[in-house]
Amino acid sequence: MTDTPPLPPENVFDWLEAEGQRRAEAGLSRRMNPRPAQHAVLDLAGNDYLGLARDKRVAGAAAAAALRWGAGATGSRLLTGSTELHSELEHELARFCGTQAALVFSSGFTANLGAVTALSGSESAIVTDKYVHASLVEGCRLSRADIAAVEHASPAAIKHALATRRKPRAIVVIDSVFSADGELAPLGELAEICRAHSAALVVNDAHGFGVLGEGGRGAVHAAGLSSAPDVVTTLTLSNALGAQGGAVVGPRRVIRHLVDTARSFLFDTALAPASAAAALTALQVLKSEPELPAKVIENAGNLAMGLKNAGLPVDLPEAGVVALRTPSPQAATAWAEACAEQGIQVGCFRPPAVPDGVSRLRLTARADLSEADVDRAVKVIAATAPRG
Amino acid sequence: MTDTPPLPPENVFDWLEAEGQRRAEAGLSRRMNPRPAQHAVLDLAGNDYLGLARDKRVAGAAAAAALRWGAGATGSRLLTGSTELHSELEHELARFCGTQAALVFSSGFTANLGAVTALSGSESAIVTDKYVHASLVEGCRLSRADIAAVEHASPAAIKHALATRRKPRAIVVIDSVFSADGELAPLGELAEICRAHSAALVVNDAHGFGVLGEGGRGAVHAAGLSSAPDVVTTLTLSNALGAQGGAVVGPRRVIRHLVDTARSFLFDTALAPASAAAALTALQVLKSEPELPAKVIENAGNLAMGLKNAGLPVDLPEAGVVALRTPSPQAATAWAEACAEQGIQVGCFRPPAVPDGVSRLRLTARADLSEADVDRAVKVIAATAPRG
Ligand SMILES: Cc1ncc(COP(=O)(O)O)c(C=O)c1O
Ligand SMILES: Cc1ncc(COP(=O)(O)O)c(C=O)c1O
Repeated sequence: MTDTPPLPPENVFDWLEAEGQRRAEAGLSRRMNPRPAQHAVLDLAGNDYLGLARDKRVAGAAAAAALRWGAGATGSRLLTGSTELHSELEHELARFCGTQAALVFSSGFTANLGAVTALSGSESAIVTDKYVHASLVEGCRLSRADIAAVEHASPAAIKHALATRRKPRAIVVIDSVFSADGELAPLGELAEICRAHSAALVVNDAHGFGVLGEGGRGAVHAAGLSSAPDVVTTLTLSNALGAQGGAVVGPRRVIRHLVDTARSFLFDTALAPASAAAALTALQVLKSEPELPAKVIENAGNLAMGLKNAGLPVDLPEAGVVALRTPSPQAATAWAEACAEQGIQVGCFRPPAVPDGVSRLRLTARADLSEADVDRAVKVIAATAPRG
Repeated sequence: MTDTPPLPPENVFDWLEAEGQRRAEAGLSRRMNPRPAQHAVLDLAGNDYLGLARDKRVAGAAAAAALRWGAGATGSRLLTGSTELHSELEHELARFCGTQAALVFSSGFTANLGAVTALSGSESAIVTDKYVHASLVEGCRLSRADIAAVEHASPAAIKHALATRRKPRAIVVIDSVFSADGELAPLGELAEICRAHSAALVVNDAHGFGVLGEGGRGAVHAAGLSSAPDVVTTLTLSNALGAQGGAVVGPRRVIRHLVDTARSFLFDTALAPASAAAALTALQVLKSEPELPAKVIENAGNLAMGLKNAGLPVDLPEAGVVALRTPSPQAATAWAEACAEQGIQVGCFRPPAVPDGVSRLRLTARADLSEADVDRAVKVIAATAPRG
């Protein structure tokens, strides 16, 4: 590299423009649309499944905590960042989920990085489904383990990868609810396969917690696995709980190990007190209104049925997510924009957010959608659908 | 692996106990000490350099934002998570730092992952100092780039690695203030080396922003590099701004590229409105009280001088961090505990938080420390120091 004259500083990032140009041509440019505090659109794009982000009790708890504890946690969990609020949240999360212990992270993303890396390593194999969430993929890449990312939704492929691994230890890493289409992983079957092969099961319940299982205890609880000694669950506090943050729940020995070794826990400022308090209060609301989660599924079902009756190809949802395939990323963008113009905000999922490369509209149901909301959404989405 | 009988599920995580035992014997076990809302200790362990986490204006803004915007952002930045609060914060951060643009992440950790991965890749080389923060290390590991992690504090080693790289593109990744000892990187010199080798410079200003430079504009601003077309700065909102979150500030084309491609941005729920509002208000406080940052350096200097005069080996600080080496991790823990018993909370840094393996007490100065605070801290720390 020494003989070429140096690039002028203003050209060092020229390659970004070239890549941006290619993305623009492929319909893959992204743009943020900042929203105002009061927004007159019907939100079918967010992950606030229970409508708790704006619940007065939850937002009020966040506000009170900021005043009482301060705006930030001031340090990592092992220095000054652990407050009694964090411990109480951990205690309540573990109790609710039926696990021995819990550990709060600053996001679901960092919780997934921490769990996957700390529970594997160079002596481990990781077997995962090739469609798992990006945060799990990044955890695998960081892990130094042997990675097998197998065919989507194939317990047989997972079994084969476990049986033919070269490392003594293994974990299977999976989403309980896949984020693009909302389909469920067969957790019971996967747990059996894991046990037959001396592997642990790590489940990312980001879209199951608060939505599935008894009173919203999540997919792992629903599968009867929450107190299993070989199962670990990761959660986000930013979806059904309407707050921010993440957590790992599972056996006490696992949580202890994460405290000592998970780099995304050790080297990250603790979750802000306001977010911890919001999650704690949302959990209390969920406990006192155990019928909320079933409404998410019901509303997702109604949305899907309506779209199906309007002639759109849609699978019946198993959780809160309804997906509509589109012919191209450009078609997805145009469709989502047409919906937005008529007051319906839908998710627009394009590569790399769709692991199979097929762009989609992605709708999320909320517990507080009315029949009229669902009807209106169906009408608008059907009327704006790309032809053919 | 097929012929051995499967492990009973309760033994799958036995290896964690074995590793925990080894850590305990090496003095490397960790324990959280959750604090109450009102705490009568003198905090020299947190990163709340300006004392803004508990500032009434900052905490009040967080509370008001939770009530107005909701407890959580409800989705990723490209779906429902971008509020006008996030844009305003980005605008103000860019203006304050003197860059074209800014992008807010949910933490400094994820900001660092995003910047390092999105600005490199398999066609790039990354040259970094082997003592940089864990979040930068993880970013490098995720990047698929060729990595050279060279000798600490050696511009010559960085230069050599750039000159001998095999990839056309390159970035140099560095902390402005190294977190364990608080020493500064020679940013001006590094920028020149980068320019001579067609490389970009990525600076993590986690401990410089709010502490160094004109009115706390940070180390990159102080080096005259904030508007450079080939320099990118990452920030945390959780240190000097007393909130939570992270940001990348730099050229507009870089920020646009991150919006399209940074996986820790795309696949992560947006920062909670309360934290965004807290950071925004903290920034306003900082602008209206431009003398605050210099007090941090002054107090750090007084702390160091006091300890030096008491016979402890300590370097004069260049930022807000004062470090005291200890003979062993056990000695560090015992020293920190002895200080805590006398009401002084100090940081206890042991492997893997100390890249050279030498455990330390780590003190952080705050703008609001009084002379009496400094005197008391010096007395207690000196009186409890390990002998020899
Ligand atoms: C499936 C899945 N896992 C993990 C995450 C990350 O959680 P968080 O947004 O709290 O970082 C998300 C969403 O953001 C998700 O959809
Ligand atoms: C040097 C350094 N960089 C990055 C970070 C990460 O920032 P955050 O805590 O906001 O994730 C920290 C502290 O936590 C740090 O000390």
